[in-house]
Amino acid sequence: MKDSSEYLEKRAFFDSLLTIYGRKPVLEALEDPSLPLHKLHLASSNRRDQLINRMEALAEERQIEVAHWDRKGLSRISKNARQDQGVALDLALPNYGTCKTFLQQRERGTSQQAYELLALDGITNPQNLGMIIRSACAGGVDGIILPRKGCAQVDPLVIKASAGALFKTQILRCETLADALRDFRESGARICGLSSHAPKTLAEVTGDRPTIFVLGNETRGVSDAVAKQCNELLRIPMRNGVESLNVAVTAALISFRREL
Amino acid sequence: MKDSSEYLEKRAFFDSLLTIYGRKPVLEALEDPSLPLHKLHLASSNRRDQLINRMEALAEERQIEVAHWDRKGLSRISKNARQDQGVALDLALPNYGTCKTFLQQRERGTSQQAYELLALDGITNPQNLGMIIRSACAGGVDGIILPRKGCAQVDPLVIKASAGALFKTQILRCETLADALRDFRESGARICGLSSHAPKTLAEVTGDRPTIFVLGNETRGVSDAVAKQCNELLRIPMRNGVESLNVAVTAALISFRREL
Repeated sequence: MKDSSEYLEKRAFFDSLLTIYGRKPVLEALEDPSLPLHKLHLASSNRRDQLINRMEALAEERQIEVAHWDRKGLSRISKNARQDQGVALDLALPNYGTCKTFLQQRERGTSQQAYELLALDGITNPQNLGMIIRSACAGGVDGIILPRKGCAQVDPLVIKASAGALFKTQILRCETLADALRDFRESGARICGLSSHAPKTLAEVTGDRPTIFVLGNETRGVSDAVAKQCNELLRIPMRNGVESLNVAVTAALISFRREL
Repeated sequence: MKDSSEYLEKRAFFDSLLTIYGRKPVLEALEDPSLPLHKLHLASSNRRDQLINRMEALAEERQIEVAHWDRKGLSRISKNARQDQGVALDLALPNYGTCKTFLQQRERGTSQQAYELLALDGITNPQNLGMIIRSACAGGVDGIILPRKGCAQVDPLVIKASAGALFKTQILRCETLADALRDFRESGARICGLSSHAPKTLAEVTGDRPTIFVLGNETRGVSDAVAKQCNELLRIPMRNGVESLNVAVTAALISFRREL
């Protein structure tokens, strides 16, 4: 029993890690005292230059572990051998987790309050992702589902565009969005796809049960696999024949709709 | 009497002209059948190459006038000698006018309905300007005040970011925003500056009189000269210690606040 809870705790910790890579982003993160750091990873093939020395000095100053790997080992950690430049850094984000853990906690928990999440499907523009995170954090939603496949990932550009909100927003990760949404639906959540042609409007959504708002790619909309998991379609009423809004604007209108 | 109304009509027409410049933007506009064109301007110093020939052929096809100018004459039209590349094009936008004309029409008119406008102060990012125009058009505001000084101007990038909404949105121009806002205030409008520290919230604004929402630069906020013209300050309530929203997001929340 003790082992299992220890294991779950450990897993939740690893789920909270966000790995960034590349010399400039890693150095900037090491220099930013507001970021919670976990571990610096270096390829042993790196030439020992000023930059690497500076990184190691900062890691010692921040009291985080430094691990050395061969090229292959490092690329397993960065998951981007082409762009990691031999360095990677784990950030330990307290609000970073997985959809699975979120659902397990809800099942075990006593909270009956209906949550609201945004789910991102094919949002590839990092500026938009950063703005979505900032609006969701400032508005009224409880978190963002960010799949590893098909979306921009949290990188230094996104961190910048989110203006610090990334570290205060619950980010739930999953592999593919369609699979995660199926789990949520089976747990009783309402899955609402945003679509400009839907008959029902956003204002008609009631807060009586957990609700996930699915935001699709600006050009292609919600993908077919994800649309199959939606049990409702919603639109934001638009005037003057405008057919779509920027996805970050849509995210903000959802997040703030009860605050205005 | 007839002369004066003819003069006013003519002036209103010239106020509706938007001049773009640069070889690529002008060619793209000439090739776009959805754009209402007025006149093509060419510097006589241009080398007669394929691109210039193509522009003249398109102007003939679209049945618009072509004017030839010396370098100095052309730069007076483009107002940007450094970047016009010897070509400029007037678009005739039906929804493009000036603050003065707007106020005169309201004074003469019988409509007692209270209007709502967004006013932009120091919005220099063309992407943001395009998104603001798109949101304002789709939402419920009646137009946007865009000063010539201190803001990004409507250029091909903005047209693209607005996704066609530019041609359906009332754009009111003025030289400096502070002067225009003083005119509006004297006509009885309420001038509301958006500020994260204001005690009053957006939700408390009533629709009983003409209202102008002033959006400031993302970093510096509303400028001093403009702040002096505001007779109210408003904030959008934000959670989790977020201090500001992207300006295009703020514009959308104002424009859609009664639709959600």
